[in-house]
Amino acid sequence: MSLLTALQWRYATKKMNGTKVPQEKLEYILEAARMAPSSSGLQQYKIIVVSDPRLLEKIKGIAYNQSQITDCSHLLVFAAWDEYTDERITQVFNDMMDERQLPHDTMDSYKSVILDLFETKGKEWEVHHAAKQSYISFGLAIAAAAEQKVDATPIEGFLPDQLDILLKLKEQGYRSTVLLPLGYRDEANDWLVHMKKVRTRKEVFITEMTYEDAEQSGFEAMSQGLDGLMQK
Amino acid sequence: MSLLTALQWRYATKKMNGTKVPQEKLEYILEAARMAPSSSGLQQYKIIVVSDPRLLEKIKGIAYNQSQITDCSHLLVFAAWDEYTDERITQVFNDMMDERQLPHDTMDSYKSVILDLFETKGKEWEVHHAAKQSYISFGLAIAAAAEQKVDATPIEGFLPDQLDILLKLKEQGYRSTVLLPLGYRDEANDWLVHMKKVRTRKEVFITEMTYEDAEQSGFEAMSQGLDGLMQK
Repeated sequence: MSLLTALQWRYATKKMNGTKVPQEKLEYILEAARMAPSSSGLQQYKIIVVSDPRLLEKIKGIAYNQSQITDCSHLLVFAAWDEYTDERITQVFNDMMDERQLPHDTMDSYKSVILDLFETKGKEWEVHHAAKQSYISFGLAIAAAAEQKVDATPIEGFLPDQLDILLKLKEQGYRSTVLLPLGYRDEANDWLVHMKKVRTRKEVFITEMTYEDAEQSGFEAMSQGLDGLMQK
Repeated sequence: MSLLTALQWRYATKKMNGTKVPQEKLEYILEAARMAPSSSGLQQYKIIVVSDPRLLEKIKGIAYNQSQITDCSHLLVFAAWDEYTDERITQVFNDMMDERQLPHDTMDSYKSVILDLFETKGKEWEVHHAAKQSYISFGLAIAAAAEQKVDATPIEGFLPDQLDILLKLKEQGYRSTVLLPLGYRDEANDWLVHMKKVRTRKEVFITEMTYEDAEQSGFEAMSQGLDGLMQK
């Protein structure tokens, strides 16, 4: 099945039937999520897998009692770094250089650049920035599940601060970002399953732009100033 | 080719050779991006496609002169809403109800809930939240490109404020979030092409958690208070 066909097949499953997802499919989905690209290759997030019914029950209580949390086969909890530090970034780059058999200091100057940049952005921005990377991985997990004909529900509706305590994420320097229950649709009881998939119309979602279009933006007039900026 | 094989094949292409991506592949990638799920189905972002060499040259100047911007076939610019408003959300929901042949007021109470929630989060959060949704779509575009054996480079390194002016995004209420040049690798001149792909080791990236693991978190003791919270 092509990726596009899989994406057209999937939907945010509202009711699951409790059937277990085979281990090899689960591993496939997790591996696709692990392959996701991330800013500077930092992969500043991870996934916690929960399938223990009693723990899922607890999580449901802090996720507005959404039934998929307990009717799913496995719940994926995406969690991202709660800040950027020299130590964390150094660790990732050192591991990368080890894998590539390059000296540890290969990326030192690049590391300085990004650390300086992050500092100007502030701690709140760092949390959002790390979380954004996890959304790329989240997208790939959704795609991989659909390809494997596994249903999934992208969920942002939960209390992250509570979940961070429950799953001990806080003490590890992580914050939960999104949830993805994996399982199988309960077709008879899912109000969304036969609803039409609605997306922004193609002609609104996608626009093309030419030099002439941009010229009318008045950017031309300021581009001198910009060139000056870039040369600094 | 399976999605996982495609993801293992792809890499953040550092040098492209200028070869054009066929129109049907471009459309396939854009359609996969359009199928992405988003928070409350709002699809609070869009894609601007640029292939005009003179406009790409301008964009390169505000993207740290990264060569892929001009050596690519098409540049996808992802741009998300710069704020949530009653009007915007109403428009999306009305369109959705029209497509599903349901009355416009079907989602009124849900709309009130999310508008109230967004208000407590603040404008800065709204910008990040809308941007995060675009990262899911970004992930799907990267996956779809890889499936089509089209190279792509996920790029966050550019000056969004400048790009928003150039592409007239600001006046439309959008902010650019990420860039994705599509094209073909220049294997002879790409320093990254033969480097080993490095990802967080599986056993670090994925952890499983049971009820017993969580019990030790001390969450048990506070769950009474939480139950109280949820009942409000």
